[in-house]
Amino acid sequence: METKNLTDAMNWRYATKAFDSSKKIPEKDFENLLEVLRLAPSSFGLQPWKFVVVANKELRQKIRKASWDQPQVTDASHLIIFTALNELNEKYLDKFIELIAKTRNQETKDLESYKDMISNSIKNMTKEQLNSWNEKQVYIALGNLLTAAATAKIDACPMEGFDRKQVDDILNLKAQGVHSVVMCAIGFRSQDDKSASLKKVRFEKKDVVIVTI
Amino acid sequence: METKNLTDAMNWRYATKAFDSSKKIPEKDFENLLEVLRLAPSSFGLQPWKFVVVANKELRQKIRKASWDQPQVTDASHLIIFTALNELNEKYLDKFIELIAKTRNQETKDLESYKDMISNSIKNMTKEQLNSWNEKQVYIALGNLLTAAATAKIDACPMEGFDRKQVDDILNLKAQGVHSVVMCAIGFRSQDDKSASLKKVRFEKKDVVIVTI
Repeated sequence: METKNLTDAMNWRYATKAFDSSKKIPEKDFENLLEVLRLAPSSFGLQPWKFVVVANKELRQKIRKASWDQPQVTDASHLIIFTALNELNEKYLDKFIELIAKTRNQETKDLESYKDMISNSIKNMTKEQLNSWNEKQVYIALGNLLTAAATAKIDACPMEGFDRKQVDDILNLKAQGVHSVVMCAIGFRSQDDKSASLKKVRFEKKDVVIVTI
Repeated sequence: METKNLTDAMNWRYATKAFDSSKKIPEKDFENLLEVLRLAPSSFGLQPWKFVVVANKELRQKIRKASWDQPQVTDASHLIIFTALNELNEKYLDKFIELIAKTRNQETKDLESYKDMISNSIKNMTKEQLNSWNEKQVYIALGNLLTAAATAKIDACPMEGFDRKQVDDILNLKAQGVHSVVMCAIGFRSQDDKSASLKKVRFEKKDVVIVTI
């Protein structure tokens, strides 16, 4: 893709407030977007996340109530809850190392120094720092999805404005060992969405880009 | 762009360890990638960041020393340091509201309730939470860049492995009111990069995607 098309895509997108509830993302495209999420990069490749696709309509209604009644939650074609692992423990690390070994046809013992390096990074963090670190990785995946959707002319609305505890309870996320971090409604904009015509608000390049010469 | 091409791009990319230092990203493409960053979404559209392009070779050498001597730092075509604002204060909020007013031809007084909403969100956070929130927004921009670069067949290596304090000092970031969060080397892979042929390690879909039916 030409880089000019990328800036066009970024200019085309906006945080869609009103979705056309009659328009669904074709299944193949939605599967591809999930694959983009699955392939998202993360620190050490740890993938400290799960992506929850809320297909159940009643659950979406409940989540809408926990999200200041924002209509995107129920009206968009799909709703994805980005969650982070509650713990990044020894057991998970072992599972990750086994995955590398299996994928790359290596012996786990040859990966021990890599495991130790990750382990030491983790040990140096407080519980809060570790959680913040995990959640940051989730935002990479969010950034991926937003860019990917925009280039495919699929609308999206990232949302932080919801009650995390309530959403965790509604989806019983504790049982999955994860907690909600951010969500994203995706689909197609309604022709009535007033937000669509609002000019994008961004600082000028000179205000956000510094070049050290 | 077809969504299939997006998954191809995500499969094509990898954390490039060895860059071909003789290959530069054409200026127009680099400018477009900076524009993708400038247009990146953030909570409330606050853009709590600055992107530092380190063009100076000596500074890149110094940063490499503060980054476990990782060769990407000096060998890639470009190095971008993603930084977050140290403070999200009343003054910044006023500047942001003025930007909205100017961009959308509105009166700042008509944006007071919006400003209060943001202000209240911020007031409910501890200093640490606010900083973590700002830094998370920076990771959206990182995710954007990684996806954008991949679709344009430009290689990238996101990096957390560096001494933040040292990099802040090297670039005198305190004077800019920001601190380093993560960095990204971009350019073109060297033909000798052994990492390029390693199989991508990702959990299976069933392990990271939950669908609530």
